Amino acid sequence: MGAEKPRVPTADDFSFFCELRVRWAEVDPQGIVFNPHYFSYADVAITEYMREMGFTYPDGFSKYGTDMFAVNAAANYRASARFDNLLRLGARVARVGNTSFSFQIGVFRKEELLVDLTLTYVNATIKERKPTPVPKDFIERIKAFEKTPPERK
Amino acid sequence: MGAEKPRVPTADDFSFFCELRVRWAEVDPQGIVFNPHYFSYADVAITEYMREMGFTYPDGFSKYGTDMFAVNAAANYRASARFDNLLRLGARVARVGNTSFSFQIGVFRKEELLVDLTLTYVNATIKERKPTPVPKDFIERIKAFEKTPPERK
Amino acid sequence: MGAEKPRVPTADDFSFFCELRVRWAEVDPQGIVFNPHYFSYADVAITEYMREMGFTYPDGFSKYGTDMFAVNAAANYRASARFDNLLRLGARVARVGNTSFSFQIGVFRKEELLVDLTLTYVNATIKERKPTPVPKDFIERIKAFEKTPPERK
Amino acid sequence: MGAEKPRVPTADDFSFFCELRVRWAEVDPQGIVFNPHYFSYADVAITEYMREMGFTYPDGFSKYGTDMFAVNAAANYRASARFDNLLRLGARVARVGNTSFSFQIGVFRKEELLVDLTLTYVNATIKERKPTPVPKDFIERIKAFEKTPPERK
Repeated sequence: MGAEKPRVPTADDFSFFCELRVRWAEVDPQGIVFNPHYFSYADVAITEYMREMGFTYPDGFSKYGTDMFAVNAAANYRASARFDNLLRLGARVARVGNTSFSFQIGVFRKEELLVDLTLTYVNATIKERKPTPVPKDFIERIKAFEKTPPERK
Repeated sequence: MGAEKPRVPTADDFSFFCELRVRWAEVDPQGIVFNPHYFSYADVAITEYMREMGFTYPDGFSKYGTDMFAVNAAANYRASARFDNLLRLGARVARVGNTSFSFQIGVFRKEELLVDLTLTYVNATIKERKPTPVPKDFIERIKAFEKTPPERK
Repeated sequence: MGAEKPRVPTADDFSFFCELRVRWAEVDPQGIVFNPHYFSYADVAITEYMREMGFTYPDGFSKYGTDMFAVNAAANYRASARFDNLLRLGARVARVGNTSFSFQIGVFRKEELLVDLTLTYVNATIKERKPTPVPKDFIERIKAFEKTPPERK
Repeated sequence: MGAEKPRVPTADDFSFFCELRVRWAEVDPQGIVFNPHYFSYADVAITEYMREMGFTYPDGFSKYGTDMFAVNAAANYRASARFDNLLRLGARVARVGNTSFSFQIGVFRKEELLVDLTLTYVNATIKERKPTPVPKDFIERIKAFEKTPPERK
């Protein structure tokens, strides 16, 4: 469940993309998107990815009495998005372990990678936060959905 | 329960103040606090006001099975706060009706009023959102706490 | 330049709509969109409205050396949006004065009006914030774009 | 300038702490602080750290024509903060390189470490973003301020 360190992604790594336009609220006095907002963008991409593969968040988990909780988050900032930029967010499940899994997100402006992020979540019971095996349903859908199957570890 | 239109507040109107420092995340490319954030500042001031008068949010309401839900919000922007400004937030209950009440908030930088806001809330049951008389406990504490008793209407 | 108080809007009042999906980041422990975020939604709608009518923000103003600065903001909360709701934001210019103008925004979920907002802006020079007549270009485009011409006052 | 991976911090590692109270706006439907907000908390802590050591942000840098730009950010989430929790944010400069430096932040609730974060910044010219040696003034102040001198690499 350690912080993942996958290689720098390219657009070809992603089977799934969604679009997002930078809001005024997200731009700082430097004229660029304030760095924490990319983690919110990643969250949007993950929600859309899960909708697209037919495992809607949070129902996909909550029907098993669990939810996904972030355990690690990391971002590499390579270039800056600006107000009104139309971004393409690539999302993939890079790893599925026993009770945890990792998403890799690439934030692109046209062909340029601006930021890449890795988010690791544990699947856990809602109240006690007891780590619980990732639903098989979730894993099967990822395998069918991804061009590169996620690492299993 | 209509939008309140109290007069422009001065620092003397407020028995209660709290301090808040402008964060980088709240400042936009114009170099000023993005206007919606003042409503979040008002929310902070209301929470601190309620703590100070001994009616902690949300427990003060939830022990009666209710919560407060915003029905109107309004702001007048007179001058702009900037990064790292230390603001003083004045808060007062300007009106208490049967099931609703209104807070007035003044955002000051030293003696200068930057923004004033009025927030009207209804006290309602948590699930059905059924409007419910404002707890007497809440009203009594406000009367004891405020220098100018709130309007009753 | 006082706070506007237009009548409750219906979907028919708006020539322009854009869509927006509620993000996890915007939903609070009550399970509903935290009330200040509707002002950020309104800002998104205004940006899209201006793009659609061919007066892109902020270039439309900055070529005249001005920008728009919020002077009043008001919202009426009628019902609550929840996580992942797909909202339709209607936007119209309800009023154009000499140096200021007001947008009215309706936030709809399907046919239901959840929140309506009125935002008044002054057109002012960027540094000194000197109020300046609204660009004719802006007014002409609005007239061509709106089904109901905005009030002039 | 790679992502740093310092050991898990304890309260003893930090010479500097500031306090921050969790806002309603920062809490999600799970009842916990939404994970991206901890990066905003870290930003607050860094601003306060720099004020305390006498190198105010952004003036400390801008007098040299530079600013600090995030290149990496990482967080480990160990436990969750909730609404109204009073948090202690420990901040230290863990590393100073030639043109970049890394802050480590620990978010504590009483004695419990909830989240630790590492933020790496490059010192760069404001317009061209040309990496530039970290001001000596900055390094000297850190050495005087920190109980454990930062790594030099």
